[in-house]
Amino acid sequence: MKEFDLIAMLIPSLPTNGSVVCGAGDDCAVLDLGAPQTQSLLKVDAVVEGIHFLPETDPARVGHKALGRCLSDIAAMGGLPIAALITLGLPKDFDPEKIRRLYDGLGGLATRHQVAIVGGETTTSPERLWVSVTVLGSVSKGKAVLRSGGREGDALFVTGELGGSLAGKHLDFEPRLEQGRWLAESGKVHAMLDISDGLAGDLGHLLAASGGLGAELMATSLPISRAAITRSRETPGARPHRAAALMDGEDFELLFTTASKDAVPLLDAWRTRFPNLRLTCIGRLTREPGIRLRTEQGLQNVPARAYEHFA
Amino acid sequence: MKEFDLIAMLIPSLPTNGSVVCGAGDDCAVLDLGAPQTQSLLKVDAVVEGIHFLPETDPARVGHKALGRCLSDIAAMGGLPIAALITLGLPKDFDPEKIRRLYDGLGGLATRHQVAIVGGETTTSPERLWVSVTVLGSVSKGKAVLRSGGREGDALFVTGELGGSLAGKHLDFEPRLEQGRWLAESGKVHAMLDISDGLAGDLGHLLAASGGLGAELMATSLPISRAAITRSRETPGARPHRAAALMDGEDFELLFTTASKDAVPLLDAWRTRFPNLRLTCIGRLTREPGIRLRTEQGLQNVPARAYEHFA
Repeated sequence: MKEFDLIAMLIPSLPTNGSVVCGAGDDCAVLDLGAPQTQSLLKVDAVVEGIHFLPETDPARVGHKALGRCLSDIAAMGGLPIAALITLGLPKDFDPEKIRRLYDGLGGLATRHQVAIVGGETTTSPERLWVSVTVLGSVSKGKAVLRSGGREGDALFVTGELGGSLAGKHLDFEPRLEQGRWLAESGKVHAMLDISDGLAGDLGHLLAASGGLGAELMATSLPISRAAITRSRETPGARPHRAAALMDGEDFELLFTTASKDAVPLLDAWRTRFPNLRLTCIGRLTREPGIRLRTEQGLQNVPARAYEHFA
Repeated sequence: MKEFDLIAMLIPSLPTNGSVVCGAGDDCAVLDLGAPQTQSLLKVDAVVEGIHFLPETDPARVGHKALGRCLSDIAAMGGLPIAALITLGLPKDFDPEKIRRLYDGLGGLATRHQVAIVGGETTTSPERLWVSVTVLGSVSKGKAVLRSGGREGDALFVTGELGGSLAGKHLDFEPRLEQGRWLAESGKVHAMLDISDGLAGDLGHLLAASGGLGAELMATSLPISRAAITRSRETPGARPHRAAALMDGEDFELLFTTASKDAVPLLDAWRTRFPNLRLTCIGRLTREPGIRLRTEQGLQNVPARAYEHFA
């Protein structure tokens, strides 16, 4: 059984209560805690040595990644991160200097986004280091952007560039917090998530949550990263660069949809507001389910479930 | 380096912001998220196979314990739990039925306390299962009870019975949520925490947080559990039952202080409100640092740092 299937099996029976605006299954949970103008966002995520980073990876980059993954989920809801809790699973012979560097990476990113670190538990993990991060955030009441709002005909956008993140971006990415908030406040975004499982995989999540819609992507529009192009050219056995943009994991870019009539004005406004970050319209949502790629040779089907982990 | 020392080293440099009422170092963080009458509590904790439970432990009890530990921390602040997030570190060949049972245990306890489970992540943990739980709670504004409020001369109380939790209570304990809220709302409690590291260890945390006070305990008043007595009698090499009550971990009872003048009225009110749960005055806080036990043979010093984990 795959992890996704397990979660899908468990979600329907989870207990809920009156505080829950949006429970398990989106980038973050959304909760109403009684504040007049805001709702709260809650997210937890973990990175594991040998799975999400290597034993020799600079611990500062591990800390950055561990917090950054959660911040990327807050960004994908249009939220503002407020506070984080850290749990470390530590081997018995851990090196305190390594942990200090890990916290330096965590703390640098937290400070840049005014996130308070309000707790640091440790537990024993004999074989390998792991880092679990919880982030609590807030979002303007009713403005959280869910995965489930995609509509037939919507234009599909992605920030930044895709593919090849193993070359370094999977450790050093900047969560798109400002962009996510700007998009949510625009009121024009129907559905949004961050790309952690690869474009095809996460687009599949958006489509499934949006009532089983499909999508048509334009191959020539995909914003393929230089890293993906270099890797496909220089690494034997690497994916072709277009497949890398579709299927590599851990891009941590935002994928979202708007009504097609809003696409051009939104692109124009984006270029004024964020002149240094690419925003690309890569296709549109269709009534016909599945993901199809329009190439020079015609339409090809793209498997949605292309990626689960590096391991 | 011990885990406690590591955390102590890291805490002073953690970033903070205006939402933080109480950061790292107490049972929960306390945050002001703008709700008019409440503040928020945030806590994360993890249990690891082979450390906090055995491979053959019933997964339902593992789930109960994983959530219960966090709820016990919410109780120790006088709070109400609202929502929980679960992260599972899963071996590749995990048995879905085992995970379903784990969620049954988690869900049963959550339902009993009206806690919503709003997210369930999984990640790969090749060697052993671990479960990390985040709980978000609330507390009446300004009513959260910290560890740091102990005063010289305070009476020291403990709920329930202590010691021998390895016989089963460490898996099946009931977090003292109702009791914690009742105590906090009384306005009479100066300092409180839950006993996870053993009475001596956690009393040491309370004393350190309360400006380096000490405590004198009355040996004949310690509420020693039947499990501790049985174990000391029947298990070769087990601690004497009094030492077990002082030093065994994972009792998950509440330890708190009140002004000495409030001790008797509080005990009376408790017996009316919670007739089925023992509350015991076990000693008092002193200006002289350190923990001393008054026995039939006079005063003995008790090492505070007696316990870190079962492992």
